[in-house]
Amino acid sequence: MMDIAALKRDLDGIKVDDHPAIVQQKSRDFYWYSPVLKAQLDHIKGDLIVTPKNEAEVIRVLAACHRHGVPVTPRGSGTGNYGQAMPLSGGVVLNLAEMNEIKTIASGRVVTGPGAILADIDKATRAHSGQELRLSPSTYNTASIGGFIAGGSGGVGSINFGGLRDFGNVLRLRVVTMEAEPKAIELTGEDLHKVTHAYGTNGIITEVEMPLTAAYEWVDVIVGFDTFMGAARYGNALACQDGILTKLITPIAAPVPQLYFKRHQKFLREGQSICVVMVAKHGLDAFLAFTRRAGGEVILNAATATDEDKKGLPPAYELAWNHTTLRALRVDPSITYLQSLYPFPNQLALVEKMDAMFPGEVFSHLEFVRLDGNITCFGLPLVKFTTEARLDQIIRLHEENGCPIFNPHRYTLEEGGMKQTDEIQLAFKRETDPQGLLNPGKMIAWENPDYDYRSGRTFLFKGPQRAS
Amino acid sequence: MMDIAALKRDLDGIKVDDHPAIVQQKSRDFYWYSPVLKAQLDHIKGDLIVTPKNEAEVIRVLAACHRHGVPVTPRGSGTGNYGQAMPLSGGVVLNLAEMNEIKTIASGRVVTGPGAILADIDKATRAHSGQELRLSPSTYNTASIGGFIAGGSGGVGSINFGGLRDFGNVLRLRVVTMEAEPKAIELTGEDLHKVTHAYGTNGIITEVEMPLTAAYEWVDVIVGFDTFMGAARYGNALACQDGILTKLITPIAAPVPQLYFKRHQKFLREGQSICVVMVAKHGLDAFLAFTRRAGGEVILNAATATDEDKKGLPPAYELAWNHTTLRALRVDPSITYLQSLYPFPNQLALVEKMDAMFPGEVFSHLEFVRLDGNITCFGLPLVKFTTEARLDQIIRLHEENGCPIFNPHRYTLEEGGMKQTDEIQLAFKRETDPQGLLNPGKMIAWENPDYDYRSGRTFLFKGPQRAS
Repeated sequence: MMDIAALKRDLDGIKVDDHPAIVQQKSRDFYWYSPVLKAQLDHIKGDLIVTPKNEAEVIRVLAACHRHGVPVTPRGSGTGNYGQAMPLSGGVVLNLAEMNEIKTIASGRVVTGPGAILADIDKATRAHSGQELRLSPSTYNTASIGGFIAGGSGGVGSINFGGLRDFGNVLRLRVVTMEAEPKAIELTGEDLHKVTHAYGTNGIITEVEMPLTAAYEWVDVIVGFDTFMGAARYGNALACQDGILTKLITPIAAPVPQLYFKRHQKFLREGQSICVVMVAKHGLDAFLAFTRRAGGEVILNAATATDEDKKGLPPAYELAWNHTTLRALRVDPSITYLQSLYPFPNQLALVEKMDAMFPGEVFSHLEFVRLDGNITCFGLPLVKFTTEARLDQIIRLHEENGCPIFNPHRYTLEEGGMKQTDEIQLAFKRETDPQGLLNPGKMIAWENPDYDYRSGRTFLFKGPQRAS
Repeated sequence: MMDIAALKRDLDGIKVDDHPAIVQQKSRDFYWYSPVLKAQLDHIKGDLIVTPKNEAEVIRVLAACHRHGVPVTPRGSGTGNYGQAMPLSGGVVLNLAEMNEIKTIASGRVVTGPGAILADIDKATRAHSGQELRLSPSTYNTASIGGFIAGGSGGVGSINFGGLRDFGNVLRLRVVTMEAEPKAIELTGEDLHKVTHAYGTNGIITEVEMPLTAAYEWVDVIVGFDTFMGAARYGNALACQDGILTKLITPIAAPVPQLYFKRHQKFLREGQSICVVMVAKHGLDAFLAFTRRAGGEVILNAATATDEDKKGLPPAYELAWNHTTLRALRVDPSITYLQSLYPFPNQLALVEKMDAMFPGEVFSHLEFVRLDGNITCFGLPLVKFTTEARLDQIIRLHEENGCPIFNPHRYTLEEGGMKQTDEIQLAFKRETDPQGLLNPGKMIAWENPDYDYRSGRTFLFKGPQRAS
């Protein structure tokens, strides 16, 4: 048994909360996007929410938890989709939301606490010097920067800068280790890979330094096409226009917008597929000329739409990435999704093939990105869920056709990722969390080094090996 | 005979100059980079240099020249390399250097006169709002924006934004037509293609609106490699790093830097090939980590070099693009150059093949760029010139191996470009210059519609068909 009462005494002076409703709320993320994870994680709950104000308090919390053998699962805003911040073994949920200071803004750089909200950072950097973050998830208005780095991979802006894992998209991280005497470590360059997208399994991020880019005025535009492949080809061609500055290029197949984008229905014809775009205002002429030549029909241009037309419309990025899924789920709870990659240079052929394979069951949704210097697309197709077996079959069919799936129905790093051990992150965990108390159950390589990824079986965490 | 005396009277109040030394100087550009053009163009000279102060004066000049049947060849700073601004039929050289006003700076946009110097524009936009032009030639410190648009194609920054011909890299142009009553026309979007890279053959640019990007501090770095292909592969891989913000990636084969980069010799080992890079200062950590992993040896890092080491060094961009050629020519007047493309996705294999083909005669020099959404490279290889026949053979061998040559030893638009008629520019010339008085001899499609590009013969302009 964890001695939570003793732990609480050791945390005197630090904000803790064990009200059951708060504990349950802060133990959850958007895992319920997945019917599989919903069944597996619905009962998951921490014992105590601890909300440090600064790094010194983080160090006190980790030392105390280490002493008491209490697991610690860090949490930003809880906008993850795969239980990244859900405490599989209970214990402390380390809520970093109040470490949200925006500390330094300089040319090309911003330094903040891990809990700073992306939109708040941009507000400050825009006001300071017309700059903004390079990348953000569609949960821009609520997600924290630390949570994005620890649990995300890319999003809006990836069409220009690739993903968080790329050199240069995170400049510096400060992390605290889980030891008897926790240490703060500064990571830059190659060392950043040790903790990015590790779900906080090998250190608690206490400060981040991120690159900035020019904050131009982005115009939301929706372009309509008679066919989904029309929208997909247009998106690909637009992404290849080196002189047209965009931030988001999102083809979505009919009838998704008609059914699930309630506030946009008035702009849409039946059967019309769309491409949602954010384009720099100063490049709008060029964008419209290109779109005309490419045969796209501009059905909404926020720069010229009337106030009445725009009234109540969400921003374009809240139609994209995982907000597409969210909008569908709000209307039809039987919808879930996948995360796929259509590798360059065959992305359009693969998209066309997969789009045709599951009529009425899988609805295409693409996000164009730069990946290793090339333009290609990820997919976040919507899936009408029937059974887990069928979902697995759809995944297998994608993979057999050359479209890797980053499975959003698994809560481990490996199964949701490259399906292999990340030796760098594993080695770093041995240094920074020798007792395995940080976010237990998320790194298969730690929990079960002999796990066979080819088995086809889901890894289900049995709980930490500790005296209980 | 042109009645220059009568023309001068009509231009009363406008600045004109017919001092022979001035007329000769202002009738020339860097055509002498090419021994072929040097022989063909050495005698070329206008009759009168006219320097308007504003668009109203441009209109007066064009009306008067139209009346007198006098050709007009517009000129910025004369930094072209193929006689773009050289008056093949004499007449007026229209010197736009004094129309250099920087009129408006806004988010993502700058409006200037055609004669504004690129470096001066950036100085103003940096001071105003931390912005700078997307693209510039290596003659950044002397070239005018109008000349760059009319006679250039890309350069520093093309690794991020492609070329001037791409949608979005020029926002708006105002041009004046060559008619009895000259008109000012505004061009945006698709219409910009009518006059970009047309050498002023179909209208005089009187105002430009260009896109801006974030002006970060750029650090000059030189990375050394034992082999040229080491430098080329590194340059390609660096260009594919989506998160590392660079502005210039220039592999250059030994012994070019050792022989021609006088002030850099102290940093170089014998036989060492190099890659010249401009990287954003805030991304330096990531860049250095990537470079270490890629096996490059940093031989100069301007961010950490001593003042003594940096003393007298030119900026990195003045080692690149056509400044590489210039530095070689200063040391060895027998050097000339080519302009080649190594098409994606086979650029590295093509580079390797061509690099091995002409030992001791052709020295590789690459410039990585984005082209239609992909990373690839242009070449500006140095050539030890012997005969025109041998130069043509080297060109032919490039083309036979799948590397198009944009021949810098020809003064026509077509022969230096895609070797075919540009119907859009031709049609626009019919509207804007029905008498063919603007920069005569540069557009083959106008001078000789029946010219056969497959003939292998150089187009030599015989002079305009006019009463003489």
